[in-house]
This record gives sequence, C-alpha cells and structure tokens, in this order.
Amino acid sequence: LKITLAYDGTRFVGWQRQADGESIQGLLESALARLEGAPVTAHGAGRTDAGVHAVGQVASATVSFSHDPATVFRSLNAQLPADVRVLAVDEAAPGFHARFSARRKTYRYQIAQAPTASPFERAFAWHVPEPLDVPAMDTAAAALVGTHDFAAFHSTGSPAATTVRTIMRSEWRRQATGFAGVGQECLLVYEVSGDGFLRHMVRTVVGTLVEVGRGWRPSSSVGELLEGGTRAAAGPTAPAHGLFLVQVEYD
Amino acid sequence: LKITLAYDGTRFVGWQRQADGESIQGLLESALARLEGAPVTAHGAGRTDAGVHAVGQVASATVSFSHDPATVFRSLNAQLPADVRVLAVDEAAPGFHARFSARRKTYRYQIAQAPTASPFERAFAWHVPEPLDVPAMDTAAAALVGTHDFAAFHSTGSPAATTVRTIMRSEWRRQATGFAGVGQECLLVYEVSGDGFLRHMVRTVVGTLVEVGRGWRPSSSVGELLEGGTRAAAGPTAPAHGLFLVQVEYD
Repeated sequence: LKITLAYDGTRFVGWQRQADGESIQGLLESALARLEGAPVTAHGAGRTDAGVHAVGQVASATVSFSHDPATVFRSLNAQLPADVRVLAVDEAAPGFHARFSARRKTYRYQIAQAPTASPFERAFAWHVPEPLDVPAMDTAAAALVGTHDFAAFHSTGSPAATTVRTIMRSEWRRQATGFAGVGQECLLVYEVSGDGFLRHMVRTVVGTLVEVGRGWRPSSSVGELLEGGTRAAAGPTAPAHGLFLVQVEYD
Repeated sequence: LKITLAYDGTRFVGWQRQADGESIQGLLESALARLEGAPVTAHGAGRTDAGVHAVGQVASATVSFSHDPATVFRSLNAQLPADVRVLAVDEAAPGFHARFSARRKTYRYQIAQAPTASPFERAFAWHVPEPLDVPAMDTAAAALVGTHDFAAFHSTGSPAATTVRTIMRSEWRRQATGFAGVGQECLLVYEVSGDGFLRHMVRTVVGTLVEVGRGWRPSSSVGELLEGGTRAAAGPTAPAHGLFLVQVEYD
C-alpha cells in the first residue's frame, strides 16, 4: 500500500517509532495492524524529526488483507487522532518502498517575519522579529541548486553513505497568510526540492540563509560551504516547528 | 489605553473572567495590574465565548502609570502567554470604552469544506465534509444586510435590551489556505460587519446558512426568520472554534 499522510508534528517524537513518546509511524502501524490482525511495518519517505510537520508524507506497507483502498482510508482515519490524517490510500506496485523508490522530495520552511508573533502561526513558523534581506537569502538559496557535497549542512554523526545530493529547486518567496485572517503580516516561505536530504539538512540550510538575511554573512558564503566547508562554519539548525514535508514524487 | 489583541481562543474560557479557567480578560488585567501596582479593569469590545479566536480584539483600560505606549506594549507581551499577543497599545481619548464606543465590528467564520479535515485547520475552522452550495449561502447571507430584528438568531436568555441590529456586510467567499501549504482544499470564509452582535448571533447565522448550503432550507428562509422567526426555527449554533473577531472600528 502507498499511504499519503498529513500531520501536525507538534506533540510527536517524530515520524519514527521511539522507546518513549508517540510517533506517527507507531500510530499508523497500530491502525494497520488492527486491519491485518498481525503486526505491520510502515516505511516513511522522510523520517521527520520531533516537531516537524507533513502535508504530503508517504508511507509504504505490505499487507495481506484484501479490503479495498477506500475502506482502508476510512478505517485509518477513524482510528488515527485528528492531528494525523490519511489523505490517500493507493495500491502500490510490488517492491514499492516509500523511501527507496522516492525520486524527489519537497520540503517547505516557514518564517513569520513580524515584530509580534501571531498566535496562529506559533506552531507552524519560526518567528524572526528582525527584518530580513529576502533577495540576498534568495540569491544564496539559488547557489544550492545542482549536485553538491552537503557535508557542511548535515548533523555530525548521521549515518549517510554519501553527503552528495542533487537539489532541483531552492527559493524564497513572500506569501500572505491567507489563513485565519492575520492580515498584519506575511510569511517568508522557503521551498526546496531534491533527490534526497541529509539529517537536519533543510533546517541547517535555513539557519544559514537567515544569517545571510540578517547581514551576518554574505550570500557567497553558501558556495564556500559547499566547496568543503564544515558543519561548524554553517549557521545554526533552524527550529523544527517551521518545517513541513510537502511532497514525495515517484516514477 | 486602547489595547489591540490577537488570541488563539482554543484553551480559554473566553474573553470574560470566570470563576474557573483562564480568560483573556483575566490575563490582560493581571499584566496591567503589575504595571499599575494596583488592580486594573479591562473592557473588551467583544465578549468572545470559549474557543472563539480574535485577530483584532480591542480592550480599554484606565491606568494612572505614565509608561509610554511602546513600553506598555513590550511589558504586556513579555507577561502574556504565546497564544495571546498584544498588537498595539495606544493612548485613548478620555471616556473611550472599547465596547460602548465601538461603531462597527467585523467577525469571520471559517469552514473547512473537504472530505478529510486538515490537521492544520482543526482548531480554526469548522470541518464540513459534505459539499455546500456556496452561491445559495451567499444569497441568503445578503438578505441579512440592513437593519433587522435578529431575535431568531440569538441565544435565549441573553440580556440585550433590543434585538435590532444593523448589518453592513454579510458575504461568503472561497479562500485558498495559503497557510501551511495545504493545497488540497480551500476554506469557505464568511465575513460579517455590523454595529453590534447579539450573543451567539454570528454562530447561529452560520449554522442557518450552512443548512441553506446543504439544501435543507431555501435561501428565502433567512428573510422569514428576520420577519418574526423564533430561535427554534433557525439553524444550530455553529462550533465556536471557526469564529474570529477580526476588527473593531471607532469614530
């Protein structure tokens, strides 16, 4: 099965099952196990961290039950809490694996750039009260497009075999907060698509680009970080609650 | 002082101080009392119910301290929790009263009309899975504009001296959910401006208009309710968590 999900990550330990705390994987596996009558393993396309949200996470699971996808869809949503919603259930081709079959993933990072943090965005955007130079951030973001070694932008100790990744899109834009009528401000939205992302990579990129926006480092420093920079030379890891896994694409 | 506030009403008992539970009025009065060194009373323009949100509530308070408005602004936001934010502090003319001086108030009601409720809107929109006839709802809404007796649209037992109110604007529109990238759906947004609103009036209007949208009652029934209908003949009270006090205007 290919299962597409959205979740508000605020209260979870992340996608992945942990010894303590509730995970989205754990909830989904429990709901599938009730249909299967036996344990089921679900693989997620992106192992989102604690506090990270998703509007288009994809999970794969192999099951033997013969309920049609519409029945599974209803049953899963009936079992899952309101902050986790199944958006679609599809039959997948044999061998489909949500993570290994993924060709392209898109993440979004939201910044609430306003003197006063809106109560309606505090769980879904990083509040930066100071003005940011968005054109400089966008210039720096564009330098990430292409195939590069992202070693400077990932958490040390992460087990990736290679730190080379290909980024197809990396850009900032201003977006009015259509939601909840908070007309006083707009969001700064960063969208990045790539063939894969290292642990904490998007958040480290955002932390670095915000330092560019603050004037603390030049736009050109991003290119230098790609050409052999170290994690210590990059910016801080931006807070988890501004990050969304938006879309996962397959062949 | 004239104090403009935004709040996520989810966890509060409403604007007004109550024997049990946290209220926005109570929090604001406590924060003002710390500056004043004595108890302070704050009057709200709209006494929003439990669960109702605000993006532009206005409160008035008479104080004797001489801190400038910018200092009061910072001090209040430092004291208040993240789900209540002061947006502005202004010196008001003598005799200013947030409720009695108000000339026009605007409320918004948000409906998430989609088969699956988005995790990101569950606290800020009423989820209606069934399709709604929005043009019929808008036609019915337009019939409310003007000066009418809204007795059919208010909670019995409310203490208003008169149930006549003037509505300047009453309309539905579709709005993309720019927030959080939930591109799968749009919100149905009702905006209504008037010189005043009875208790539960907006929510009863919305509950009635949604019955029009479902085809359970004709658009013309709204006119009949205004011409001597009873509360029992109107629709149900829509849930509190879709309602926002948007703006309060003064001379």
